[in-house]
Amino acid sequence: MTVQISRRGLMFVLSSPSGAGKTTISRRLLADMQDIEMSVSVTTRPPRPREVDGQDYYFIDRARYDDMVVKGELLEHAKVFDHFYGTPRQAVERRLAEGKDVLFDIDWQGTRQLRDKAPDDLVSVFVLPPTLSDLEKRLRTRAQDDDATVRARMAKALDEASHWGEYDYIVINDDLTRCIGQVRAILTAERLRRVRQTGLGDFVGRLKS
Amino acid sequence: MTVQISRRGLMFVLSSPSGAGKTTISRRLLADMQDIEMSVSVTTRPPRPREVDGQDYYFIDRARYDDMVVKGELLEHAKVFDHFYGTPRQAVERRLAEGKDVLFDIDWQGTRQLRDKAPDDLVSVFVLPPTLSDLEKRLRTRAQDDDATVRARMAKALDEASHWGEYDYIVINDDLTRCIGQVRAILTAERLRRVRQTGLGDFVGRLKS
Repeated sequence: MTVQISRRGLMFVLSSPSGAGKTTISRRLLADMQDIEMSVSVTTRPPRPREVDGQDYYFIDRARYDDMVVKGELLEHAKVFDHFYGTPRQAVERRLAEGKDVLFDIDWQGTRQLRDKAPDDLVSVFVLPPTLSDLEKRLRTRAQDDDATVRARMAKALDEASHWGEYDYIVINDDLTRCIGQVRAILTAERLRRVRQTGLGDFVGRLKS
Repeated sequence: MTVQISRRGLMFVLSSPSGAGKTTISRRLLADMQDIEMSVSVTTRPPRPREVDGQDYYFIDRARYDDMVVKGELLEHAKVFDHFYGTPRQAVERRLAEGKDVLFDIDWQGTRQLRDKAPDDLVSVFVLPPTLSDLEKRLRTRAQDDDATVRARMAKALDEASHWGEYDYIVINDDLTRCIGQVRAILTAERLRRVRQTGLGDFVGRLKS
């Protein structure tokens, strides 16, 4: 018999300097764990090759983006390089109300906004690379980016890394399997927090009656 | 390559109503995980069959116990039924200073004292049985206890269960393997908390230099 206790959903943020392996970790987490779904962001930047609208991002124009900001339809939003990004509020709130979790692949700016809005629902994990040369190597092997883009991304990565101190958990991606196991453990543990298991009072009540 | 970040040790408390499977979970946790050791309590109660002095408990007399209390040598101490229990302070503090963890098999009274003394170092987990009849069955199969003892233990178990709201995490022991996996995930996650990884500043500094 498995006892199911109802719980409050959580917002699980995974941030890292670009190139630290975050995307792979996110994919594996979604494949391994139940009851967690990716939040799909809107963006004004054009799609890259192989990116699918509604799956990688919702690709929208600037007018629609401004409209969403004005109407409060974005839970967080930020400008990165020359483009705008944001998280549609409605899908996240529906999911949390169902007691399911939402995974966010956002940077420190977005994380800060989520923390301000819903500190109790937010669990933030920062993934660090084991070395910086490792990071540069990974950025260079992204064939679609030219040299100037790699340099700009490297500078952005360093800036991003400087915000590690704002996160709840830090994992170092020196071994991908180990790192994925650690991120999975964090999600498993956070779901077991007493304050998140909203059905515990009823459960203990039945135990004692 | 595995990056080792120095960290602060934590006090990992596992409490539960007697008979909920806590002892089995503790043993498996100690066998599965590195860098965690059991805190051995002192007690004034006589040893049960097969209990080993210095391993299950340090069996001491009342005069020695009172002396330890007066000299502040106990981190927490409590009376349970007619006997006294306590945690020797020195062994725990040495262990934490080395960045290793200490596992405590103590009740809510002891947990409360540890929380008052070192809230940042304490992680507390409460194990609940899936049903109460399950608990009674387990208590009855302990051959060494007579009927009156079982009844007293059952009352104590109910009292203990009423303190679940004071713990950080709640796990329900409906499936032992699953439950052990959950407790292991909690320990893994808590070690990855930014505030515990004292060597992170140096690590990030080296990354960026």
